Amino acid sequence: MKESEQTMDDLELIPTDQLLPELAEYVGIPSVSRSATIETMREAAGWLANQLSFADGRMVETDGFPVVRADWLQAPGAPTVLVYGHYDVQPTGSLDEWETPPFEMTVDGDIARGRGVTDDKGPVFIVLKVAQAFMAQRGGLPLNVKFLFEGEEEIGSPNLPQYVKDHAEELAVDLVISADGAQWRPTEPSLSIASKGLATLSIAVTGPTGDLHSGRFGGTVANPVHALSTILASLHDESGRVAVDGFYDGVAELSPERRAEIDAVRFDDEEYRESVGSPELFGEAGYSTLQRLWERPTLEINGVEGGGKYTVIPHIATGHVSCRLVGLQDPAKVLAAITKHVESLNTPGVTVNITTDKGGVPAYRIDAGHPAIAAATAALNYVYPGEEVLLAVIAGTLPPTTMFEKVLGAKTIFFSFSIADEKLHAPNEFLRLRRIQEGMRAWEKLWILLAAGLETSAQGASNGEVK
Amino acid sequence: MKESEQTMDDLELIPTDQLLPELAEYVGIPSVSRSATIETMREAAGWLANQLSFADGRMVETDGFPVVRADWLQAPGAPTVLVYGHYDVQPTGSLDEWETPPFEMTVDGDIARGRGVTDDKGPVFIVLKVAQAFMAQRGGLPLNVKFLFEGEEEIGSPNLPQYVKDHAEELAVDLVISADGAQWRPTEPSLSIASKGLATLSIAVTGPTGDLHSGRFGGTVANPVHALSTILASLHDESGRVAVDGFYDGVAELSPERRAEIDAVRFDDEEYRESVGSPELFGEAGYSTLQRLWERPTLEINGVEGGGKYTVIPHIATGHVSCRLVGLQDPAKVLAAITKHVESLNTPGVTVNITTDKGGVPAYRIDAGHPAIAAATAALNYVYPGEEVLLAVIAGTLPPTTMFEKVLGAKTIFFSFSIADEKLHAPNEFLRLRRIQEGMRAWEKLWILLAAGLETSAQGASNGEVK
Repeated sequence: MKESEQTMDDLELIPTDQLLPELAEYVGIPSVSRSATIETMREAAGWLANQLSFADGRMVETDGFPVVRADWLQAPGAPTVLVYGHYDVQPTGSLDEWETPPFEMTVDGDIARGRGVTDDKGPVFIVLKVAQAFMAQRGGLPLNVKFLFEGEEEIGSPNLPQYVKDHAEELAVDLVISADGAQWRPTEPSLSIASKGLATLSIAVTGPTGDLHSGRFGGTVANPVHALSTILASLHDESGRVAVDGFYDGVAELSPERRAEIDAVRFDDEEYRESVGSPELFGEAGYSTLQRLWERPTLEINGVEGGGKYTVIPHIATGHVSCRLVGLQDPAKVLAAITKHVESLNTPGVTVNITTDKGGVPAYRIDAGHPAIAAATAALNYVYPGEEVLLAVIAGTLPPTTMFEKVLGAKTIFFSFSIADEKLHAPNEFLRLRRIQEGMRAWEKLWILLAAGLETSAQGASNGEVK
Repeated sequence: MKESEQTMDDLELIPTDQLLPELAEYVGIPSVSRSATIETMREAAGWLANQLSFADGRMVETDGFPVVRADWLQAPGAPTVLVYGHYDVQPTGSLDEWETPPFEMTVDGDIARGRGVTDDKGPVFIVLKVAQAFMAQRGGLPLNVKFLFEGEEEIGSPNLPQYVKDHAEELAVDLVISADGAQWRPTEPSLSIASKGLATLSIAVTGPTGDLHSGRFGGTVANPVHALSTILASLHDESGRVAVDGFYDGVAELSPERRAEIDAVRFDDEEYRESVGSPELFGEAGYSTLQRLWERPTLEINGVEGGGKYTVIPHIATGHVSCRLVGLQDPAKVLAAITKHVESLNTPGVTVNITTDKGGVPAYRIDAGHPAIAAATAALNYVYPGEEVLLAVIAGTLPPTTMFEKVLGAKTIFFSFSIADEKLHAPNEFLRLRRIQEGMRAWEKLWILLAAGLETSAQGASNGEVK
């Protein structure tokens, strides 16, 4: 929206160009959780805590990098939300591939470029700035807000679950709003109503004690790569369906209504195919590409390794498998089903060892009729008048979401103003500058709507607004 | 044999302990063809040429490392043989694994340890010393000998074929005797009557342009590792037989006679299984382990690679395949058959690229009744009285053998006093010391028998001596 369109009731938002120096300061702290020192991470956390001084912003140490906490709880009777985000960033990758230095935020036309600018420093910065505007112009926030920003999201949040468990009472809320989790694509506003679960395992096939000369021993022993190939090939049938008994337990038949909803989303197979570069799209028969992406579980082989281009019979070959889960699929049961399937195969002459990974994550879903989705939709409608808000699915996995639901009993909505095409995790990560004003306005509206509406969720009063 | 057993007619051989300092000198030159400088390689070649001064020993430059040539052709009417071997050695591998420094030959009980001592410096040294003994005590060799030692055997002899083609006339001989090619096992003397051919290719399966996030793109595109696994799994049937149409073209049915011959060889499956460490032996149904090893062609997957243990759909997966050939299998036709097989498979959504490698080698075989085999058998019988000489197969591939047959029209026999268990190519390579005297005596007898007998090959006069 243009700033001239704001109504009398809207907050005065600081123009983007005046905000950029401060965002550049934040992006300039190289808080790469995979490699930074604790001092650097504390510098980023301290920067955030300082921005939250109006709400007792503070660093809290964990066994890893600190979390940043703040609470503004002076809206009696109003709902309480937890704002989640992270201050750590991905490694830069090769510096040669960056057009400008990753930790020197650079404005380039209508974007700002820099590591973390869209994942997740920019989206968190937007929340800080709208909160500060509320404090300055209204003397308070429209609802109670607990802030929780972690410094280990890019390394799998190893210490967050324990922190949340240990502080469950302190963190009790009605709703979690994640400032992380990019919107789907730049062509329309969207909200995510689901994300897939995750379960992973590795299969190691061993044969002889060491690599054997393929001539001097060829024909006498089973080849582990061969056995592994047989195992991996057996995991799907020819139509692309997972051929593991029990894999689909907990997956509901895709309803005609949901099929129709997805079919109504503008999605061009050929455009998508070109963007990924595959010669043709492929997947489970009986579903459209978007139906598969959003609603169907998958089993992918992420990697294989064994031997090389030299004449050996390798003594070991390993395959790595990950499954994305939907519905009520249980990660542990999925791994057990795959294990049983693999063990039932005939692979003479080799030993098959399966290592299932801990930390499986079930799928997450928030009802499209949830009042928080209604409020978020309305907030986006306000900022993007006339554009339909798409209810999308994050086909990836968002472990904190599931954890918040389990530990705090609260649903999460994603309200990030990052877009999935902004080179997250890649060189030349960027943020569209217009999203800063749009995001601030949307957060303002979201909080106001939630303040008015979350309490009425039992009556489903907001359902009518959902697209 | 004990030295006291030598007959009046035998050469006086220099005792091993007097020979060792000279062998140590040769082993001490680190002529690792994969990494050494041309100067080091010339030092080794020069050492050899110097030993052959009685036959005009000389280094001859090639496009790579020099060959060593020498000719003693003063036995008119006697046959002419080419003695082949190599002066280069394998890399040492990790020095930590060596009990003593690889290039300081160390006598340890009844063995000498050092890189190259058994592959192929010791076996070549044996020939030099017996030739020198003939020269010193008899004033000449019993037959005409051309010596050809290369410095690139361990890197695939890239320049030898061209050298031999360019000097085919100069190298014309009745027989090649290889001082390379270890005997099968320490329990009995053996001669190799065949070696397998080799044909190799790689299969690259590509899908999307780059690795894709397995969540955000899962279910929309074919996974190259999956397609590769399907391809690799299809190359054999469940019984272990190669399932590629045309693969077995040129492979004769294994005759009941040959089956019986092999069955008569003492070979303990369980002992063999323990030595390789596989949980059980496995291979093409209908053949014993040794029948498969010696007489059946194989197709092995030497390696696979693609992606890793992280949640991606890899954009490429590669498999490397090598086949060992027997009988009249044509390497080019075998590769064409595999290519056709792979291309006939249904692998939607990916692109399959097959790269067949040049330099395929057909199988090699010398008739068990060949007079040279008879002579070699008799020579071994003389040195190992009462022990049956085993006619074995080298299940590996010996490219020079095939090349000599093609370019010079001469068969090769293997007459090395290395044994396959002497850690060839591995740390702690060693040579049994007793083999130096045994080897010298055997070469002496071989040359004398060939001088008398090769001319009679047309009459098959020696056949009766073959085991």
